[in-house]
Amino acid sequence: MTQIAYLNGRYVPRAQARVRAEDRGFLFGDGVYEVIPVHAGKLIAADRHFERLGRSLGELRIAWPMKRAALEVVTREVVARNGVQQGGVYIQVTRGVAPRDHKFPKDVAPGLFIAAKRTKPLSAALLRDGAPVITVPDQRWGRCDIKSLNLLPNVLAKQAAAEQGAHEAWLVDEDGNITEGSSTSAWIVTRDGVLATRPNGNEILPGVTRAIVVDMVRDLGLKFELRPFSLEEARQAREAFITSTNNYVLPITRIDGRPVGDGKPGPTAQRLRTAYLQATGRSA
Amino acid sequence: MTQIAYLNGRYVPRAQARVRAEDRGFLFGDGVYEVIPVHAGKLIAADRHFERLGRSLGELRIAWPMKRAALEVVTREVVARNGVQQGGVYIQVTRGVAPRDHKFPKDVAPGLFIAAKRTKPLSAALLRDGAPVITVPDQRWGRCDIKSLNLLPNVLAKQAAAEQGAHEAWLVDEDGNITEGSSTSAWIVTRDGVLATRPNGNEILPGVTRAIVVDMVRDLGLKFELRPFSLEEARQAREAFITSTNNYVLPITRIDGRPVGDGKPGPTAQRLRTAYLQATGRSA
Repeated sequence: MTQIAYLNGRYVPRAQARVRAEDRGFLFGDGVYEVIPVHAGKLIAADRHFERLGRSLGELRIAWPMKRAALEVVTREVVARNGVQQGGVYIQVTRGVAPRDHKFPKDVAPGLFIAAKRTKPLSAALLRDGAPVITVPDQRWGRCDIKSLNLLPNVLAKQAAAEQGAHEAWLVDEDGNITEGSSTSAWIVTRDGVLATRPNGNEILPGVTRAIVVDMVRDLGLKFELRPFSLEEARQAREAFITSTNNYVLPITRIDGRPVGDGKPGPTAQRLRTAYLQATGRSA
Repeated sequence: MTQIAYLNGRYVPRAQARVRAEDRGFLFGDGVYEVIPVHAGKLIAADRHFERLGRSLGELRIAWPMKRAALEVVTREVVARNGVQQGGVYIQVTRGVAPRDHKFPKDVAPGLFIAAKRTKPLSAALLRDGAPVITVPDQRWGRCDIKSLNLLPNVLAKQAAAEQGAHEAWLVDEDGNITEGSSTSAWIVTRDGVLATRPNGNEILPGVTRAIVVDMVRDLGLKFELRPFSLEEARQAREAFITSTNNYVLPITRIDGRPVGDGKPGPTAQRLRTAYLQATGRSA
């Protein structure tokens, strides 16, 4: 199962999904993507994800590979054909195939690749103990708000985390502030009990799960500031957590090996995880 | 002609060179490349290019796809099979095919794609008049010394240049210094007649043509400083030029529409172009 992909107009066995070596996605990372969570066979927060896809495409002046409504139909069809109940669907759009030349080719059709996968829930141990993160310098380019295929710095950061037994790497900018994780958004609850996460800008991806949690935090009337926070402040925080499509809301209990607060998942993160799961129709 | 590529162990018609959509080159830009110039059917400065390929691979901990000596043989075979006399050969190595996950996959063979192409000489007008460049902010990541497939900022800069009728875009860092062009190295001859180009570091690619020209400059005993120079200094320079595999040494006569020096190709750049062409066995 989960073996049917959609590639440039056709449903194909996933192992046979092959693209031209001269696709600009392969030569330049010239493309964008989304991962939309699937629960009970349905897309979660689909509108926000397709909205963001449109924004990424627009910033790079890549055309929609088909009308948005049609893309939504095909995306759901890929999920259905693979019988995915719990997992995610990956959508990638590239600028298309052309002889290698940096500047945009003319009259080229965008490439489209869609695949679905099942995901296992996070382990009970991770949810009980919380997750460790390491920190690394943020080496990414100046347009991290575009969800592009230029992911090498994210790959290297995640690999560093894996080698140190951590769940994620938090990226630290030149001012000593945390921007975000390699594939997640970063949050803290300060010593004074105030939630903080960095405002949208060119330095971070506008996280969909993050935006949903921001809305929840406001609805719940929690003390909250949309502002950068430093690594030093995170070290002294009462709680820390990450948000993402795959992690939902996940407590962070160690930063570079040092415990956050009392080293256990904090009440705010746990409350938000529960609220997020309920809001998106999932059980805890 | 020029229609045979080498892909993952086989010589294939170029239009049939297809890679798995789950190649990490396609999903993450997780790979590196080289373009080696070809003159009279032979590779130019091959040692320096393969050396740099090895360095890029090493920095990303990607294995050689085959022994270096074998790769050199295959590379030359691609050039020969396509009968390329004047042009270049493109070599791309990716980390390989694996289900999408940021961290390095285990036990995966690197992917290898090689293609050759003919190139036309630069136009007589460009050589007579020199080339215009524009300047744009350098938005690239922190490891530009790695010749990676994360080329979106380079693509966007080159596109901006093309839309403004310029040959290249020079990238300006936060200190107001030129780092390099989107696919070329940047040089000036200062008002005092001193050649300057930025020293190697994480901010620029260690250009092969640039290194050859540095050696030539030293052999010729020209006044020369390996140091960053600012956009302001470039505007007031006596001459400016770029070096690259495709451009050799090419005079720059306009920066953002304003003439450099007297607006004509300078004598130092022209002398170095001639010397470079002779040194690499080419006529002017």
